[in-house]
Amino acid sequence: MKVGVVDTTFARLDMGKIVANEIADTWADIIVVKRTVPGIKDLPVACKLLLADCDICVACGMPGGAEKDKVCAHEASTGLIQAQLMCEKHILEVFVHEDEASSEKDLVKIVEDRCRKHAHNAVYIIKQPQRLRDNAGSGKRQGGQDKGSINH
Amino acid sequence: MKVGVVDTTFARLDMGKIVANEIADTWADIIVVKRTVPGIKDLPVACKLLLADCDICVACGMPGGAEKDKVCAHEASTGLIQAQLMCEKHILEVFVHEDEASSEKDLVKIVEDRCRKHAHNAVYIIKQPQRLRDNAGSGKRQGGQDKGSINH
Amino acid sequence: MKVGVVDTTFARLDMGKIVANEIADTWADIIVVKRTVPGIKDLPVACKLLLADCDICVACGMPGGAEKDKVCAHEASTGLIQAQLMCEKHILEVFVHEDEASSEKDLVKIVEDRCRKHAHNAVYIIKQPQRLRDNAGSGKRQGGQDKGSINH
Amino acid sequence: MKVGVVDTTFARLDMGKIVANEIADTWADIIVVKRTVPGIKDLPVACKLLLADCDICVACGMPGGAEKDKVCAHEASTGLIQAQLMCEKHILEVFVHEDEASSEKDLVKIVEDRCRKHAHNAVYIIKQPQRLRDNAGSGKRQGGQDKGSINH
Amino acid sequence: MKVGVVDTTFARLDMGKIVANEIADTWADIIVVKRTVPGIKDLPVACKLLLADCDICVACGMPGGAEKDKVCAHEASTGLIQAQLMCEKHILEVFVHEDEASSEKDLVKIVEDRCRKHAHNAVYIIKQPQRLRDNAGSGKRQGGQDKGSINH
Repeated sequence: MKVGVVDTTFARLDMGKIVANEIADTWADIIVVKRTVPGIKDLPVACKLLLADCDICVACGMPGGAEKDKVCAHEASTGLIQAQLMCEKHILEVFVHEDEASSEKDLVKIVEDRCRKHAHNAVYIIKQPQRLRDNAGSGKRQGGQDKGSINH
Repeated sequence: MKVGVVDTTFARLDMGKIVANEIADTWADIIVVKRTVPGIKDLPVACKLLLADCDICVACGMPGGAEKDKVCAHEASTGLIQAQLMCEKHILEVFVHEDEASSEKDLVKIVEDRCRKHAHNAVYIIKQPQRLRDNAGSGKRQGGQDKGSINH
Repeated sequence: MKVGVVDTTFARLDMGKIVANEIADTWADIIVVKRTVPGIKDLPVACKLLLADCDICVACGMPGGAEKDKVCAHEASTGLIQAQLMCEKHILEVFVHEDEASSEKDLVKIVEDRCRKHAHNAVYIIKQPQRLRDNAGSGKRQGGQDKGSINH
Repeated sequence: MKVGVVDTTFARLDMGKIVANEIADTWADIIVVKRTVPGIKDLPVACKLLLADCDICVACGMPGGAEKDKVCAHEASTGLIQAQLMCEKHILEVFVHEDEASSEKDLVKIVEDRCRKHAHNAVYIIKQPQRLRDNAGSGKRQGGQDKGSINH
Repeated sequence: MKVGVVDTTFARLDMGKIVANEIADTWADIIVVKRTVPGIKDLPVACKLLLADCDICVACGMPGGAEKDKVCAHEASTGLIQAQLMCEKHILEVFVHEDEASSEKDLVKIVEDRCRKHAHNAVYIIKQPQRLRDNAGSGKRQGGQDKGSINH
């Protein structure tokens, strides 16, 4: 099985590398193909091109905190969903907004946690979907602590 | 007839299970297929994949209350509509926003009511469309009490 | 000629019935097919399905006044435009926002006026396009009094 | 060569007529086909239908000043871009927002200027693309005075 | 290899010329084809038409600072992403918002820097993708100084 990973030169951390390493460290049999594009709006077509040959893609990006950057992220997300519908394959979006953390140190923590957890999610989708079904409604979070299910 | 139900690991309640149980309890002859994805933006392609084999899908999610979460919900909804147009089959969106209720207890009530009522709607669409026609303009609500028709 | 009319169980008035009656009362030779879906986001695919067999559709809905409802209306509208482009047939959107009127009585007036006028527009599009061309730039309004052309 | 012109009964000036006359007055050999639809959201499919036979379309509309009208304009614009991509032909959008001017007299001026200039642009695109290339980055404006290039 | 460059008559600087010259000065073997359209909303279809024959496009525009202009930019961006997905080729968006700088002099600097850097990015994508991969997560910026990677 083959996972495509696309990241950007805009991001301030090599997010794709974290995803690729996490997959390689956990599943020896999964091939990872990595591409890099300038910014997040270039991710949708890059993923679509990779999906010709890959079973799933992970699209990594780090939008800035300004209003314009939020609009860019929205456009990129919309395109990623469209690409999935055209390819009939999943693309996991791993975006970390620069304003999610108050310090660079915290931003790194969020990036690493989100990238690693979504690396696992990507493989679960194509290889072990039962792992996701077992966690339906369990309040999973990527980039921080799980919120957990509501007791009732 | 076959109903696809997709929910998320992000949600804090197993919404898909409520939908699936409601259908199983009410119609013994309807087959339910359940899938789980990480978050709401993963729902559109998951539904499109299920619709290859199902007559309708129910897409369940629980977006958070932050501004970013509202944008995610908008992107997911747009994708769900697009998926329907591509497949020419219905996908009922069952989203409960975390900020719709002021307590966890109330949130559970909303989730259960909305899931159950839309489980019925899904089956009506594919099996008993007259049930919906009979209620045109009757102010039905899912997640709370019906508002009813305006008297005139 | 055949006109598809789709409305919702969410609306608080049977909008589709007003449209269907208006057409039946005015043009004896037009066949009207009516469908009902739960909410406005279900309209696009319902219209697309009807357009396989109809010459035009009228999509009726009554979005609530909350911010979330406005987003739903935007998503539904976007989907209705997409459906038209895919089918190469018109869908007339007849949405009345609950907050357009300050009383239920006024809301009923708006709904009736908008439904009736758009019923005529639908038939003009497929049967008497000259009626529309004759009124180009004439400030027509549905749901209230026409604004008229600007004198110059 | 054939130019499609679509306008609305909602607008308060016969915008399509201004565009059609401007083309007829300037280029005797260009055929103009005119259609009228109720509102701006009906423009995308009307243009797509015309483009089966026309080389380009001009889509005219006059959105109101309210927040809801701005959303309508956004939906129409998005649809017009989608229609172009599906047809691989240009559609020039000529929208004048009712709140662009403080008086009806000024609004008329804006409408006439924008309609006429875009009538020329439409013909340039299909017949004299060099005219546009010669003005790249020259700060052209439709509906008012050109802003011109930045001196540097 | 062939790069399509599209710019607008609306922009106040000949952005396409800067991009085209930068490519010609750096890569003698790359053919550049230039087109000009009236405004940014005309870019998506113009790029799609060029991509029939080009390996990549660069879409240049200079949206104004008003709220309406920001909506136009959003619509254009959405269309550019859609065009890429339909063509399975990249389109690099090079937009400079008029309100990004406080003086015309600064605006010129931003335009020149962004155009030149994206000219290089366009060629890297089709010819030297390794150049981008080597800079994954390195905080590259176009239009100003790079932000660089976060140290960790």
